[in-house]
Amino acid sequence: MFQSFESSTSPEQGPPRLAALRAAMQTLGLDGFLLPRADAHQGEYVAPRDARLEWLTGFTGSAGFCAVLRDVAGVFIDGRYRVQVKAQVADDFTPVNWPEVKLGDWLAQALPGGGRVGFDAWLHTADEIEKLNKRLSGAGISLVETGNLVDSIWPDQPDRPSELISDYPVELAGKASGDKRAECAASLHEAGHRAAVLTLPDSICWLLNIRGSDIARIPVAQAFAILHDSGRVALFTDPAKLAALAPDPEVDVADWDAFAPALARLDGPVRVDKASAPLAVSRILEDAGIDIAPAQDPCILPKARKNAVEIAGTIEAHLRDGAAMVEFLAWLDAEAPKGGLTEIDVVRKLEGFRRATNGLRDISFDTICGSGPNGAIVHYRVTRETNRPIRAQDLLLIDSGGQYLDGTTDITRTIAVGTPTGEQRACFTRVLKGMIAISRARWPVGLAGRDLDPLARIHLWRAGMDYDHGTGHGVGTYLSVHEGPQRLSRMSDVTLEPGMILSNEPGYYREAAFGIRIENLVVVQDAPDLPGGDARAMLDFRTLTYAPIDRNLIDAALLDAEERAWLNSYHAETVRKLSDRLGPPARAWLQKAAAPI
Amino acid sequence: MFQSFESSTSPEQGPPRLAALRAAMQTLGLDGFLLPRADAHQGEYVAPRDARLEWLTGFTGSAGFCAVLRDVAGVFIDGRYRVQVKAQVADDFTPVNWPEVKLGDWLAQALPGGGRVGFDAWLHTADEIEKLNKRLSGAGISLVETGNLVDSIWPDQPDRPSELISDYPVELAGKASGDKRAECAASLHEAGHRAAVLTLPDSICWLLNIRGSDIARIPVAQAFAILHDSGRVALFTDPAKLAALAPDPEVDVADWDAFAPALARLDGPVRVDKASAPLAVSRILEDAGIDIAPAQDPCILPKARKNAVEIAGTIEAHLRDGAAMVEFLAWLDAEAPKGGLTEIDVVRKLEGFRRATNGLRDISFDTICGSGPNGAIVHYRVTRETNRPIRAQDLLLIDSGGQYLDGTTDITRTIAVGTPTGEQRACFTRVLKGMIAISRARWPVGLAGRDLDPLARIHLWRAGMDYDHGTGHGVGTYLSVHEGPQRLSRMSDVTLEPGMILSNEPGYYREAAFGIRIENLVVVQDAPDLPGGDARAMLDFRTLTYAPIDRNLIDAALLDAEERAWLNSYHAETVRKLSDRLGPPARAWLQKAAAPI
Repeated sequence: MFQSFESSTSPEQGPPRLAALRAAMQTLGLDGFLLPRADAHQGEYVAPRDARLEWLTGFTGSAGFCAVLRDVAGVFIDGRYRVQVKAQVADDFTPVNWPEVKLGDWLAQALPGGGRVGFDAWLHTADEIEKLNKRLSGAGISLVETGNLVDSIWPDQPDRPSELISDYPVELAGKASGDKRAECAASLHEAGHRAAVLTLPDSICWLLNIRGSDIARIPVAQAFAILHDSGRVALFTDPAKLAALAPDPEVDVADWDAFAPALARLDGPVRVDKASAPLAVSRILEDAGIDIAPAQDPCILPKARKNAVEIAGTIEAHLRDGAAMVEFLAWLDAEAPKGGLTEIDVVRKLEGFRRATNGLRDISFDTICGSGPNGAIVHYRVTRETNRPIRAQDLLLIDSGGQYLDGTTDITRTIAVGTPTGEQRACFTRVLKGMIAISRARWPVGLAGRDLDPLARIHLWRAGMDYDHGTGHGVGTYLSVHEGPQRLSRMSDVTLEPGMILSNEPGYYREAAFGIRIENLVVVQDAPDLPGGDARAMLDFRTLTYAPIDRNLIDAALLDAEERAWLNSYHAETVRKLSDRLGPPARAWLQKAAAPI
Repeated sequence: MFQSFESSTSPEQGPPRLAALRAAMQTLGLDGFLLPRADAHQGEYVAPRDARLEWLTGFTGSAGFCAVLRDVAGVFIDGRYRVQVKAQVADDFTPVNWPEVKLGDWLAQALPGGGRVGFDAWLHTADEIEKLNKRLSGAGISLVETGNLVDSIWPDQPDRPSELISDYPVELAGKASGDKRAECAASLHEAGHRAAVLTLPDSICWLLNIRGSDIARIPVAQAFAILHDSGRVALFTDPAKLAALAPDPEVDVADWDAFAPALARLDGPVRVDKASAPLAVSRILEDAGIDIAPAQDPCILPKARKNAVEIAGTIEAHLRDGAAMVEFLAWLDAEAPKGGLTEIDVVRKLEGFRRATNGLRDISFDTICGSGPNGAIVHYRVTRETNRPIRAQDLLLIDSGGQYLDGTTDITRTIAVGTPTGEQRACFTRVLKGMIAISRARWPVGLAGRDLDPLARIHLWRAGMDYDHGTGHGVGTYLSVHEGPQRLSRMSDVTLEPGMILSNEPGYYREAAFGIRIENLVVVQDAPDLPGGDARAMLDFRTLTYAPIDRNLIDAALLDAEERAWLNSYHAETVRKLSDRLGPPARAWLQKAAAPI
């Protein structure tokens, strides 16, 4: 079982550690210390060694940070974690509603006479510190680069993970690492940059066609790298991790501690992505007098534009995953009405069906399985404490995915246990209309996710409703399930390009009552010319995810003819694509679940 | 008759004037001279004195510019004017496709050895010249501020217009000028700016509650002004224009030539809107050592948020205009099938119906009346040369509006003469679906026009179609029919706020065949909470324009139930609101034209 339902922390762990941190601050003459959730790679998941925020405060959420001052310690958490934080941290910590309250404003108010606030330059990006400095400069507060004070007081801090790195064969990657390196090097050359610093593990793994298992849920190896404009790469990690790989003459491997000296020896200009690289990288280059060229990590866009082999792999992974989902949904449909199931039972069973494919390498994130009111908590993760029985008349929201060698999946289905209310059906159908609108979208080349996002929301808006998250995120191929730069979001100006994979997941959440989300993954592709249409270059989405959408929750009268046609065709395709992969009971169940409406 | 159908220029006028201009360039040792279409107020229409581009080249379009070099003279025109420019300018001029070809790139290529290019700093904004300078700095080309060389060679250049200014009473403006000045002054004060320079006539007329008739189509007086943070205003124009106004002790009037010296005496920081103020304003301030604070003209947002009195006036203006439109449409429906009508006949007749209201002060722009293939020319204006008979099976696109004391209107209807083809009806219905989607839109507070624009296009996109213009522009109240800053456009990040008036005008154009556009004006308003909806602050549109939409062009099978309901309700409202204002034949015609589908 990949997923755990234990609470790994308790509020009692915080106060003595906080006292020790304050003592360390005092030794250095600091008035404060900033502790982010992030590690040096700014990833969504961190290794146990990097779980400093959790260790200090007890808070286990996937985003947030702590600002420790002499007499107050603010734990900054966003809307997802307002309730959770109160259960996880001791009274010595003060939850702060973020981003409504900004760190700079909070510090300025808490330190009216100014002061010195320490931070670890490996855990914050240059953009982040620059923005904060701008706010604090007038308030007499200076940010001081110190070592990591938490590491200095954490006696049994785990070691860095050091799992074996494996080759990701060209049969799955679709392009040899040498070709990728040559192309990225050419883009550096064209920009006049001599080298680029890579600090994101998924960029490095993509570029070198390798995968690792240093952290949960994302099959990457932790490393830093330098890509030279010659195409040569210097890789910094524990060399023992490469024991199973054939050496590549174009890749020089060195240990972690060689990274900083290697940076200081570079010829500039050196490309640094200030949105993701630790500030420490810029500092080392500056101190060595090397020109910094701020620009995006050169792997990000080529990685996002999946090639034909990656797309074919992803399609296969989704069919495998879809068959497991159908087995699961058939089981759930039979068992849930009997009563006695809990959220944890459902999560276990679903992971079991995915494991039974014999292809599952990991789940792609901790399954969100929220029944009734828990469904309205957008990033709910069930623990033994919150585990809720599945009752008749509950909506059950299940958002889950798998990591397979050939692709990464992410699917959400919302299921009615028993007979849903008319209001639940109306809300579900509005969400479905938005999800269908994105699935069917076709648009002129050049638009961004921002330009499509309203199509997913307008039917909710017209009913006075909305959802407080983006409509979709980018997805990797056997990499992170949250991969940029593209998004379907009013925040995203990134142009959508063929090969980009996105989730399409509108929702609706009624606090303390129910949650609804419907999610398929889609991939951007060139749209064929239509008879009678203009001669315009246009794009559309190919759907990747196949699994039935609960017909009990659909109010067919609210769908127009084209929406009904899309749904019926989607269900017919689901039967066609998955039946051969199902056992007889699930196959029979799918026939009914996918019947036309 | 406001509209003229004459061609005011001929290609022959250009070459001798071009030769004279080149002689003037040589005297000053210039390699080039830039001549924009704009005047010092960056408006859409210019006075005869400012029609320099037309005088020099013969080109009469509403946007474009000429770059005259020793041996080539590029006339830069956008997609609307590619055909027209060829008929209007002599071979001595070279049409350049703009913005595909940028002025800076063109100059750099045409002057490979560098050179000196003159321009009049009163006719270009600071933003414009800054951007151009950035491009040219590496190419050895320097931009030189000269006087206006065209003025120096134009012997019979007309005088500045000097029409009487009239009071715009608070009963129509809804807020006393003193109150507007106090509020704008407070916003300056808050920003720490001592004064703001106003160069846009509609800002000045709005602020002072005055109107003028210096130029066609827009009831403004040409002037410059300085708003002090005390609320006091210095107005620079021909003082004779104010003869009919009671003096305002808070407004100091001086002649045009006092403007520059007054600027040089200001205390800084002085707010300058670099997107609209002539570069000359910045130069004068810089030369006098006065701090410039670049920021938006302080009148623009308060002017855009129409108050309740302005909205009530606009509603009344639209009903008056709508009744004239119905009389016109009834006439057209009876006469067009008989044959023999031309586009000019239609424009004349429509203006006649508007004049018959006894409220028409001007048309709000030259009526676009395009039959058959002319309808596909987005900014078509009929002349005696292009005038086309209205034939059976033509679509006739009529985009027109009126200036009334209480409001400015803008409406487009597309009419089928005889029986339209199925393809024409399908295209029209797709456009209508987009127009209805905007009319019915409801959205959370905080979105911009960019976020709604896709709703107008998605039905066309799905058929492989689109239109190459924005979905809507802002509209003034008895001011410019094109008023910023809000727009419905993928280019617009301006947040939509209650009181903003916008056009809603999706279209579809099939080159050499037909054009379709349907346009109503709408105003943003707070949307009432809906039963069952979230407690979210949301906005929606109130429709201002009432006139029937041609039912012969609607394929009802392509509308969903909600779209049909909107259309039927809109038509029923049209009958209810307009019937009392119509003569008996038009009233009877409207009953049929507005019947439910």
